[in-house]
Amino acid sequence: MSKSGILIIISGFSGAGKGTVVKELIKKDSFCLSISATTRAPRSTDVDGVDYFFKTVPEFEKMIEEDALIEYASYVGNYYGTPKEYVLDKLNEGKNVILEIEMQGALKVKEKFPDAVTIFITPATFGELERRLRKRGTETEEVIQNRLKRASEECVFMDKYDYIVENNELEVCVSDIVSIIRAISLKKENSSDVIDKIKSDFNK
Amino acid sequence: MSKSGILIIISGFSGAGKGTVVKELIKKDSFCLSISATTRAPRSTDVDGVDYFFKTVPEFEKMIEEDALIEYASYVGNYYGTPKEYVLDKLNEGKNVILEIEMQGALKVKEKFPDAVTIFITPATFGELERRLRKRGTETEEVIQNRLKRASEECVFMDKYDYIVENNELEVCVSDIVSIIRAISLKKENSSDVIDKIKSDFNK
Repeated sequence: MSKSGILIIISGFSGAGKGTVVKELIKKDSFCLSISATTRAPRSTDVDGVDYFFKTVPEFEKMIEEDALIEYASYVGNYYGTPKEYVLDKLNEGKNVILEIEMQGALKVKEKFPDAVTIFITPATFGELERRLRKRGTETEEVIQNRLKRASEECVFMDKYDYIVENNELEVCVSDIVSIIRAISLKKENSSDVIDKIKSDFNK
Repeated sequence: MSKSGILIIISGFSGAGKGTVVKELIKKDSFCLSISATTRAPRSTDVDGVDYFFKTVPEFEKMIEEDALIEYASYVGNYYGTPKEYVLDKLNEGKNVILEIEMQGALKVKEKFPDAVTIFITPATFGELERRLRKRGTETEEVIQNRLKRASEECVFMDKYDYIVENNELEVCVSDIVSIIRAISLKKENSSDVIDKIKSDFNK
């Protein structure tokens, strides 16, 4: 039997570069991204089962009832959630499954899945966050100010995460997350296969 | 102020390749090896303060009395121990300090320094351990049999370590240990410098 994967919850300030980091991680064979379920209408480029699992409202509400979602929220009149089955299947296949999720949701998931590892991604400074938000050039000053205000409020959540990873250089940040996951897989608690094999081997 | 280093306790079966792994680790700037104190006579190639701190028996016993040793043991009529001051100085400089130490000593150190990380290095199989012990070609059959017997007794200690690292390929084993140490340094508990900086930065 292959070793079970690790559930990885990634959060961070808007503008911290989470999306780019996650994109790099899932290029690696051992990592995959959780797929959300949603009741919003598919866009022309959306592929069902790849970008999202598209559900009707009654289907989604049935999933809520049956506790088939790891977490869910409603946003601008649509439901969004994380189907449990897909995540558990991937973990059983030995994949490390990434959930990119906002902070309050993240902490709720951690309560339900205490073995999940929570990682907070942050730029080194406030100035750097501001610079990145402005660099996009797509947002109005008001949106930028709102995001910065929200980030300053979200600081209090940092202490609740297992690991704090600075995203100054993309490669270092990605390699830091890979190190965290590798280290967790080497923990005694996750090495019972190795320990048992050695013990039975040695005492033949 | 630079971040304090991590105390790393490495143990493993005789023949697991600990020495080679440690030699590779201390080639890296952020790692250094603890230097033992001993009452045994220096050999012609020994350099005081590099290979060992050479002590007289009264000097060593004074260190025991003053609790200046992290651990000590006597072996073939000589004292061997780990001077606390050297280790603490290096940790304060931000170095990760490696203690290569047998299992009972290792677990005693962990009790005294719960923040220390304990790593158990093992070959993948008993057969591989036997092959390595024979490959050296320097030991008698009796010595080899004794080491294998000891290894089979030492298995029970594996569960007491924080991390289990297989040494099948030297490079992978070294990189696994580097990952463990990097991951520990990214833990929330060890990131208060980053968290505090961000918090004060964001709430100016």
